[in-house]
Amino acid sequence: MGFIYQRKAAYHETDRMGIIHHANYIHWLEEARVEYLASIGMNWDAMEGMGILSPVISVQVDYKQPVTFNQTVEIEVSVLAYNGNRATFGYEIRNAAGQLCCRAQTQHCFVNAAFTLLSLKRSFPELHEKFNALMPPDEQK
Amino acid sequence: MGFIYQRKAAYHETDRMGIIHHANYIHWLEEARVEYLASIGMNWDAMEGMGILSPVISVQVDYKQPVTFNQTVEIEVSVLAYNGNRATFGYEIRNAAGQLCCRAQTQHCFVNAAFTLLSLKRSFPELHEKFNALMPPDEQK
Amino acid sequence: MGFIYQRKAAYHETDRMGIIHHANYIHWLEEARVEYLASIGMNWDAMEGMGILSPVISVQVDYKQPVTFNQTVEIEVSVLAYNGNRATFGYEIRNAAGQLCCRAQTQHCFVNAAFTLLSLKRSFPELHEKFNALMPPDEQK
Amino acid sequence: MGFIYQRKAAYHETDRMGIIHHANYIHWLEEARVEYLASIGMNWDAMEGMGILSPVISVQVDYKQPVTFNQTVEIEVSVLAYNGNRATFGYEIRNAAGQLCCRAQTQHCFVNAAFTLLSLKRSFPELHEKFNALMPPDEQK
Repeated sequence: MGFIYQRKAAYHETDRMGIIHHANYIHWLEEARVEYLASIGMNWDAMEGMGILSPVISVQVDYKQPVTFNQTVEIEVSVLAYNGNRATFGYEIRNAAGQLCCRAQTQHCFVNAAFTLLSLKRSFPELHEKFNALMPPDEQK
Repeated sequence: MGFIYQRKAAYHETDRMGIIHHANYIHWLEEARVEYLASIGMNWDAMEGMGILSPVISVQVDYKQPVTFNQTVEIEVSVLAYNGNRATFGYEIRNAAGQLCCRAQTQHCFVNAAFTLLSLKRSFPELHEKFNALMPPDEQK
Repeated sequence: MGFIYQRKAAYHETDRMGIIHHANYIHWLEEARVEYLASIGMNWDAMEGMGILSPVISVQVDYKQPVTFNQTVEIEVSVLAYNGNRATFGYEIRNAAGQLCCRAQTQHCFVNAAFTLLSLKRSFPELHEKFNALMPPDEQK
Repeated sequence: MGFIYQRKAAYHETDRMGIIHHANYIHWLEEARVEYLASIGMNWDAMEGMGILSPVISVQVDYKQPVTFNQTVEIEVSVLAYNGNRATFGYEIRNAAGQLCCRAQTQHCFVNAAFTLLSLKRSFPELHEKFNALMPPDEQK
């Protein structure tokens, strides 16, 4: 069970096929992830203020059903894996009729301002605990 | 051996980490694909004029090395698979130093204006032959 | 007195100066305009379904104060002028502290699918009345 | 007589009206400006490395003729005004048939990393001279 982020598809996100351009879903995933983390006390703005950046290391998106202008979608986001150094998020985007429009995963590492890899577990144990708590007990690190 | 598309990373494509935002690579893949297809006589504009749309059905991107503002990258694009109904493109993005920045795949189907699936092989045999010719002889359909 | 549209500045909208890239405000203006028109019974999706397109013919934006990631802004939108053929919208964007971040105007015409100019007044009198009602009595057409 | 930057309109820049979305022209103006400045020895990347940021303080765009997917446009850019603290750039975008598609102006100031206003004339006299040299002799500061 994940966090639900709601979003309305904007005109500027459409393309000449009349549907939301596929690159824009990547924006929606990010917005959902930011709101999800804020909801568990990890404000991304504040985390960057602490010197933690989190570049995306992979994105996988399966497009199932086009989304069109003005549709409201729900993006369900959850943490699929976390090992102290990397986190994988999973996403499902559904339209108002409940149809699955998109299923996605993004993988992230943590780096400092010089883009040197950080272990959250070692360097930011309090944040590590927050991430860890999102995992089932037998998968916690 | 694929087609090479060259691109300079724009200021508006950066984010506050100081690197090109990961969603923008999806734009670059599309631009490279459009130029590649044009180079083999499949002008995408003209194909849409014939009533062929080609929605993206999946995207997979692995980010290896950040690209920053004003860097020129080379995007190598090739067709990895084609079966008459679907095509898979592969991409490698390298910076001026030759470092691999990104490896990606996108998968596409073909539909008409009503978004009904088209078989290129059946409905547009001439285009089918162009796609087919991009595949090794033993993989042609 | 205008309509208020609320929006949170997204990570993907930042640039490497650490602020929201100036082009993204144009997206916000559009979103605010779409919601404003929906609030007075002019659903933009439905209007395009009736064959009315509304290209932007000019944009003027004055940037007063940068907006940064995760800030919530309020965009106040109103109709400044309408003459049956064209409409001018005015906007003010304020941050949570109430500071004016941006003042803008956009001008729009109306065209059919072939991009021939439409007079809303002549071709769509019901929509004309809705627009007209947004103007002070002595400026109605 | 200005500098000419050539650009092909990309698929991801279209919207569901079938034309390039109006916000994307702002990207094109920026790309043209960056290339223009590089051509006179002001590499923007290097300037930011010296601690000079240049936020946009206003944008004015008049859209004359839609640009569509795959069209190549030429963007002519020049400096209209410069006073040591601010610069105004002018732009004309023309399609392959030579038709004027867009006329625009952008105004910029110069700030340091803390967003405090800089006088190029006082703090970076060498850059000031480069900007100044773009102006007619009787308008130089």
